[in-house]
Amino acid sequence: MAAVNGKKIKVGIVGGTGYTGVELLRLLSCHPNVELTAITSRKEEGMPVAQMYPNLRGHVDLCFTTPETSPLEQCDVVFFATPHGVAMEQAKSLLDHGVRIIDLAADFRLQDTVAFEQWYNMPHTCPDILAESVYGLVELNREKIANARVVGNPGCYPTTVVLGLLPLLRRQGLIDPSYIIADCKSGVSGAGRKASVPTLFSEASDNFKAYGVGGHRHHPEITEQLEGIAGGAVQLTFQPHLVPMIRGMFSTIYVRVQPDAQSTDFQALYEQHYAGEPFVDVMPAGSAPETRSVRASNQLRIALQRPNPGQLIILVVQDNLVKGASGQAVQNMNLMFGLPETTGLDLVAVLP
Amino acid sequence: MAAVNGKKIKVGIVGGTGYTGVELLRLLSCHPNVELTAITSRKEEGMPVAQMYPNLRGHVDLCFTTPETSPLEQCDVVFFATPHGVAMEQAKSLLDHGVRIIDLAADFRLQDTVAFEQWYNMPHTCPDILAESVYGLVELNREKIANARVVGNPGCYPTTVVLGLLPLLRRQGLIDPSYIIADCKSGVSGAGRKASVPTLFSEASDNFKAYGVGGHRHHPEITEQLEGIAGGAVQLTFQPHLVPMIRGMFSTIYVRVQPDAQSTDFQALYEQHYAGEPFVDVMPAGSAPETRSVRASNQLRIALQRPNPGQLIILVVQDNLVKGASGQAVQNMNLMFGLPETTGLDLVAVLP
Amino acid sequence: MAAVNGKKIKVGIVGGTGYTGVELLRLLSCHPNVELTAITSRKEEGMPVAQMYPNLRGHVDLCFTTPETSPLEQCDVVFFATPHGVAMEQAKSLLDHGVRIIDLAADFRLQDTVAFEQWYNMPHTCPDILAESVYGLVELNREKIANARVVGNPGCYPTTVVLGLLPLLRRQGLIDPSYIIADCKSGVSGAGRKASVPTLFSEASDNFKAYGVGGHRHHPEITEQLEGIAGGAVQLTFQPHLVPMIRGMFSTIYVRVQPDAQSTDFQALYEQHYAGEPFVDVMPAGSAPETRSVRASNQLRIALQRPNPGQLIILVVQDNLVKGASGQAVQNMNLMFGLPETTGLDLVAVLP
Amino acid sequence: MAAVNGKKIKVGIVGGTGYTGVELLRLLSCHPNVELTAITSRKEEGMPVAQMYPNLRGHVDLCFTTPETSPLEQCDVVFFATPHGVAMEQAKSLLDHGVRIIDLAADFRLQDTVAFEQWYNMPHTCPDILAESVYGLVELNREKIANARVVGNPGCYPTTVVLGLLPLLRRQGLIDPSYIIADCKSGVSGAGRKASVPTLFSEASDNFKAYGVGGHRHHPEITEQLEGIAGGAVQLTFQPHLVPMIRGMFSTIYVRVQPDAQSTDFQALYEQHYAGEPFVDVMPAGSAPETRSVRASNQLRIALQRPNPGQLIILVVQDNLVKGASGQAVQNMNLMFGLPETTGLDLVAVLP
Repeated sequence: MAAVNGKKIKVGIVGGTGYTGVELLRLLSCHPNVELTAITSRKEEGMPVAQMYPNLRGHVDLCFTTPETSPLEQCDVVFFATPHGVAMEQAKSLLDHGVRIIDLAADFRLQDTVAFEQWYNMPHTCPDILAESVYGLVELNREKIANARVVGNPGCYPTTVVLGLLPLLRRQGLIDPSYIIADCKSGVSGAGRKASVPTLFSEASDNFKAYGVGGHRHHPEITEQLEGIAGGAVQLTFQPHLVPMIRGMFSTIYVRVQPDAQSTDFQALYEQHYAGEPFVDVMPAGSAPETRSVRASNQLRIALQRPNPGQLIILVVQDNLVKGASGQAVQNMNLMFGLPETTGLDLVAVLP
Repeated sequence: MAAVNGKKIKVGIVGGTGYTGVELLRLLSCHPNVELTAITSRKEEGMPVAQMYPNLRGHVDLCFTTPETSPLEQCDVVFFATPHGVAMEQAKSLLDHGVRIIDLAADFRLQDTVAFEQWYNMPHTCPDILAESVYGLVELNREKIANARVVGNPGCYPTTVVLGLLPLLRRQGLIDPSYIIADCKSGVSGAGRKASVPTLFSEASDNFKAYGVGGHRHHPEITEQLEGIAGGAVQLTFQPHLVPMIRGMFSTIYVRVQPDAQSTDFQALYEQHYAGEPFVDVMPAGSAPETRSVRASNQLRIALQRPNPGQLIILVVQDNLVKGASGQAVQNMNLMFGLPETTGLDLVAVLP
Repeated sequence: MAAVNGKKIKVGIVGGTGYTGVELLRLLSCHPNVELTAITSRKEEGMPVAQMYPNLRGHVDLCFTTPETSPLEQCDVVFFATPHGVAMEQAKSLLDHGVRIIDLAADFRLQDTVAFEQWYNMPHTCPDILAESVYGLVELNREKIANARVVGNPGCYPTTVVLGLLPLLRRQGLIDPSYIIADCKSGVSGAGRKASVPTLFSEASDNFKAYGVGGHRHHPEITEQLEGIAGGAVQLTFQPHLVPMIRGMFSTIYVRVQPDAQSTDFQALYEQHYAGEPFVDVMPAGSAPETRSVRASNQLRIALQRPNPGQLIILVVQDNLVKGASGQAVQNMNLMFGLPETTGLDLVAVLP
Repeated sequence: MAAVNGKKIKVGIVGGTGYTGVELLRLLSCHPNVELTAITSRKEEGMPVAQMYPNLRGHVDLCFTTPETSPLEQCDVVFFATPHGVAMEQAKSLLDHGVRIIDLAADFRLQDTVAFEQWYNMPHTCPDILAESVYGLVELNREKIANARVVGNPGCYPTTVVLGLLPLLRRQGLIDPSYIIADCKSGVSGAGRKASVPTLFSEASDNFKAYGVGGHRHHPEITEQLEGIAGGAVQLTFQPHLVPMIRGMFSTIYVRVQPDAQSTDFQALYEQHYAGEPFVDVMPAGSAPETRSVRASNQLRIALQRPNPGQLIILVVQDNLVKGASGQAVQNMNLMFGLPETTGLDLVAVLP
């Protein structure tokens, strides 16, 4: 499917009040090929977007509207920055009007509907649309995304873990797929903008904690992708932690190198695999990545360590709101409309 | 009124789930003369206190109980760490049982009930008890507090501003009472433990803002105290700000020195005034106080600056949860029960 | 002076290792009319810039060079992001080669060389160049900057205080110029990237403090500008504080409204004064600005409060590294080379 | 060796200006059996301790003195809160005067002097004293410590990892000792109070990073202890990270449960092992520990997770400056002088 013939892409955002919503607005308001058409929020109907988010003063003039009164069906693409379950409800109608969909929630991430129902406590109401949807990890599914009508934008943790392991699992025999550990750390914005005690400043600041003790929703999503790549079973131990920073995600992934593969040059393997990727940076050997090196940018950076022959450590950083959410969604949109993948995303990370 | 004859003071806490509640528990669980008798929370009934606040594991064995089933009437003193309006409701009944009351909310701070109703949006339901209550700023009302049945523990901002100005306003003619500016900065814990968007980590971290644009409840409280001290009208401009730190309050107070008073040695004045106070520290001339120098302690520190003859700046720091709330409440309790004022409060600030 | 005939502006940066240096690089690497030609650092000679600042990986390919071996004299403009005193030394030689200069240090800020020597502990070695230099506050000196060979980029505090007071002091009789108070708060990046104990994370985090007790270098700079605007004496009390955040500056300015001017509509006055300014945003009445609303952008936002008829409070926020330093420097460059002022600076603030 | 017959213990501190030094002062100034006798700092000679650390105003009256002029030899015990290598130099002389030594640096931690020289870049100059010294992990070496003349206080990371694995390695066959992963996260105060760029607020705040890529000094220390406990070889992968918080350490330890041991009740095993320990808290099953639950206290808390039968995760938190350094040192002192182990250490963690 080609772009829109030199015309701007008409974009709608459903649920623009959360952090992925405001981040979409930050990115799309500067995107040269986008015309922001509608931003919906039932709760904030009528409020100027820039009043809720003063960083947008002078950049976004729209007010929040309700989905019912919004010209979503006239859009070329609609982003769902909503709670899980909303995109499922509205997908069919939009598709029928020729609108393409990028869902930043989980409705179109997991092909396994049983796992979906178990982890998200709701039935999947449009398995047929799910069946045609594409998992929007560009570096994995570039061609499919370009032609997709519905894209399920990956979760933040899965983006780091899947891209961190992709070059390894593509080939048989490099690592032991039955013993992979992902020790992951996220900034607090990953929990969203909902009022809640555990994410209050006075609770989360100057503190570090584990969470998701009983399991985390991103676990089945990661496993489904890893098994698809490996073509077989993968056993992953996944432990998320909360870091007192706003943005940023750091995944430390521990894998066992198979005895026969210990002479592999993993650094070269990764560099070759990601050589053409604009948003995946394989850092030089010996690097120690830090989250601020990607803050507010769409980069994901990877570094490798080899503390002993049987052990490989993959360190991955991204901004959870950009490459881990809204930036990746825009990257998907660019692909879907035939634009250069980096359009509107050529952002230098903010440091310090 | 004397202490309790060598026996421990039986203490109840109403509303122990907020930050002033957990801070009371931290202080009282180590207080040598206190027996914690009941901690109420309607919402958390039955939950072990140390489950909600794991820092108390091994120190507090109680569970939260409802007020109805709690032995509050058998206590010697009850602290109210509740929303405004709760202490008013229960005060009479407790007093009738001989229980003394220290309210950490605003019910017994303002003698001006019209101002109370205006700023707290509720009528004052026990003006007679209010009339006998004492404003619990020890350094101002030491004797009265010792004999009080009901103490209104001061607000956090008022503690810094009133103690910062007390030596000046006690004497006529030193400063211009019609032009006092208090530019105040508070850590986020001052907003309490209630789930709310503006105090989320992702909103309040790495950010500094003004608030209370339309006025702040502590304004009439401060003015009432200052006018009581000055014996006349005082005009105060009071601007609060929010600092991305958990604990700590910093007030920068600007006053105009009267032309006839410009030769005053203000440093000496303050040092003499506070010479005997265990919890007010007048720092040496030229000091720049910092909030961490009082973190988790009951100290309030004051430093003076004199940028030009007509201008005096008073810099005041405290921990808003200790001297600005729960520590001051314990200091009041000590006085009320004839204990040395520093009992259980001889804490060294935690630095770094 | 016009632009460079469609060719890119050749830019050199002297002293690219500090925070204003890396911020210049972030902005200039995306500037459509700029060709980064040289970045000097004696200490880091030969090191790839992107190795020191991994956020620049993929955006800046240069290595640090020494000033001696750098093609600075072939540049169109050189930015000095150096300690005070360096630009003075190199200015004459560059000017002789037709290179224009934007100094982010203090060498060309103060016309009063006596004050300069007193506050910066060094003699001014090129008073003739100083005499022709222009104070680079665009909103004050737009025309002069366009034609300047040497621009002294304003200090961060002065930018907020001068722009905060400009509409008031332009007219006689609105406020009392003998009693202005600027209570200012800065993020820690304002102290630069030099290793020092007071700006360590463990010292500055979770802490708020006053500093500059014996006076601050920006005081004479602010006063010189204010007096130039007012055409007469101004007495300013200026108290800086340190906030535990990386970027951001918040100035709370207290002025006395003259009795005859108390019916002035200050909101309208500010809105009219700044109506055409792309980087000064007068917020609606009743707003409470926050620093994150300008984080990583070149905006400065102003809000007004009027707690009583005799008192006006001006609240000003900016990102100290952008509008307070490197962004303003690029704004100056745009003007000097005939480009639209907003070129390369149309950044949406990063929130959250 | 018994206590000092009812007299106070005379304590000297060598190198009192760093974070472990000021933390020792915070703890010892409130210790009922201690008389602070001397605090040395060559660099700060003559400065009142409370001027450098204003939290100690009113608690510590001493000035820093030089080691030469300090009555260290008349002390009962001397703490070394110095860089590595200092305690080695002064140990013999102090021991000859009957002074006992607790070293908070690494001089007496590693019995393997080859590893010491390799990791600390200096020869070990008193191997005989090293031979008699005891590794000061109370929960491992309680009896030996009581009688030791020289105690090497454990490193912060080793304290968490060794105590986290102790109950497992004491018994053969529970876990695979050849594949242990410790993913550790430390607050910034662990890097000390030395001026350095990487630990500046503007570098470390709002950021998360890995470090120690080429290996970390605590690795051989941990391995030496683990192998001593296990009575055989242990292979540990140890990856430290830096968290933007002042205090706190969180270790996530991944071990493989041996097939024959998968029915073990690990929760019960840990609870029994640590039942009598005042400073090790095994949290209930399903807990997710957080560092603030031990902030400023001497507690170390452990929680267990069992995501699948072959995998056990041990989560350990402590305050790196207390149980990970100065608090543990005081615990050692208490043991060495026959005092109850908790004397002066009965601190409730500061939360929030």
